[in-house]
Amino acid sequence: MSMAEQKKILCVGLVCLDIINVVDKYPEEDSDSRCLSQRWQRGGNASNSCTVLSLLGAPCTFMGSLAAGLTADFILEDFQAFCIDVTLVSKHAQCVPPASVVISNVSTGSRTILHMNRNLPDVTLEDFSKVDLGQFKWMHWEGRNAEEQVKMIQQVERYNGTLPQQERITVSVEIEKTRQPLYQLFPYGDVVFVSKDVARHFGFESAEAAVRGFYNRVKKGAVLICAWAEKGADALGPDGVLVHSDAFPPEKLVDTLGAGDTFNAGVIFMLSNGKSLQEALTFGCKIAGRKCGFHGYDGIIEKTST
Amino acid sequence: MSMAEQKKILCVGLVCLDIINVVDKYPEEDSDSRCLSQRWQRGGNASNSCTVLSLLGAPCTFMGSLAAGLTADFILEDFQAFCIDVTLVSKHAQCVPPASVVISNVSTGSRTILHMNRNLPDVTLEDFSKVDLGQFKWMHWEGRNAEEQVKMIQQVERYNGTLPQQERITVSVEIEKTRQPLYQLFPYGDVVFVSKDVARHFGFESAEAAVRGFYNRVKKGAVLICAWAEKGADALGPDGVLVHSDAFPPEKLVDTLGAGDTFNAGVIFMLSNGKSLQEALTFGCKIAGRKCGFHGYDGIIEKTST
Repeated sequence: MSMAEQKKILCVGLVCLDIINVVDKYPEEDSDSRCLSQRWQRGGNASNSCTVLSLLGAPCTFMGSLAAGLTADFILEDFQAFCIDVTLVSKHAQCVPPASVVISNVSTGSRTILHMNRNLPDVTLEDFSKVDLGQFKWMHWEGRNAEEQVKMIQQVERYNGTLPQQERITVSVEIEKTRQPLYQLFPYGDVVFVSKDVARHFGFESAEAAVRGFYNRVKKGAVLICAWAEKGADALGPDGVLVHSDAFPPEKLVDTLGAGDTFNAGVIFMLSNGKSLQEALTFGCKIAGRKCGFHGYDGIIEKTST
Repeated sequence: MSMAEQKKILCVGLVCLDIINVVDKYPEEDSDSRCLSQRWQRGGNASNSCTVLSLLGAPCTFMGSLAAGLTADFILEDFQAFCIDVTLVSKHAQCVPPASVVISNVSTGSRTILHMNRNLPDVTLEDFSKVDLGQFKWMHWEGRNAEEQVKMIQQVERYNGTLPQQERITVSVEIEKTRQPLYQLFPYGDVVFVSKDVARHFGFESAEAAVRGFYNRVKKGAVLICAWAEKGADALGPDGVLVHSDAFPPEKLVDTLGAGDTFNAGVIFMLSNGKSLQEALTFGCKIAGRKCGFHGYDGIIEKTST
């Protein structure tokens, strides 16, 4: 195993508590109903991607902020149960632990999310400046405080400039939400994930249209990837060849929560191990599809064959 | 102050964690949306009634079971913050703390509740047998494990039989849910609260129709009370005179969660202090109405004049 292979993957972004309520019928307003089950799960895009990377056997680190209090221990213990490095997690005092409420409908696979405003500072350039970049081979940013994130990525670019090609850190960014400031991240990833939501917001009606339409925004040599739920995913690299994978839906849709984060992790895992874009895309679709067939992530490895 | 006035009120029933998500629009299925705010609140009918009784200045005790774990400390601390006696709370080991998710819509005042199956044993006759009955002047049962609750009430009846009239414990029961076994509680309360839900389930279209229609089910001398949201509440006692109070809606409906529990507490508070049925009913409607004008219970005293 070479030095590069022992290096870790860093995911920068959100961790929160997801309180997942499994129902067989979406509740009507002003009703009282009973869940089939309820589970508390560590959530957040970057945090979920770490879970899947770790299950796939890739050493990884999560960087983000956490509210001290009732649920911080739950979240930290769960990170540790998945062998995810939390040395870059910063704790902030806060009285009320924020939680996202998810209503997961087993009859349709739909997941309805009520996000909580966390009032927590995102990772800053100052926090990031303290990170020993040498331990990482890949860094993934969940687009949030984009202006600050651009500065962090520029720091990585300067660091990369001092290194030979094969030792450089690959940078990926995820542009998931339809928020104007996030679009400044397009030119900052070697790999850019853009969501169906953002694509549709710009009037693109397919993953192919999205990657072709957005490609002029990414930097020279970058790969642009767009997943489109049951339509699979498309990617476009510097060679201009469109790469596509169909979706691999499970026999029964059970839980689509975190499917996008699972896709991203699958793609990053394969690309960071030197696989082709086609292999990475197909694997991402496969693992994301399988994830939708059960709750949570624990079974993802047994149930997915590369 | 006489001995009877120093005695406490016991409420037997449910305590749980309510995770209350305040929205200005009820979320559509499969959407992502953001709460205006989120708060964690001790909930459960009997637990809520204790909160209001304590705020009104009545010493009270909660009896019920609690899952040990993440949220037990939160709940116990909150009981103590409201000076509610928790010596009769039994803790049960359980990994996942159950929470009820509430979506509270400030635009309409609606509250949509996703209950969690708690898998916790309800209070049993055996638990109850250990209680020193002499410290209580009033005992209120939230209808749950009715068969067992009947046995507890019969124990109180036997105890009452040994005492002079003025030292006896008054028993109230709440029949809120439309579950057949709960209806066996009708003949066991000196004061019986029956919900609009149960009334409508039996085909009654008003509080008056409900108290008249159900009155043959209660024991001799009992008072039967039915609150009907914005229509106020009606009550019928042994004298056959219908007592009515209009509702006292707040200027703006903000949060109806726990309004019924507040009404019950208001009525119990007044009756246990020797007030008339009319005074109790009016006060119950007044305090419940005011409660709907703000979140939670903290402001209930300042904002309600008897």
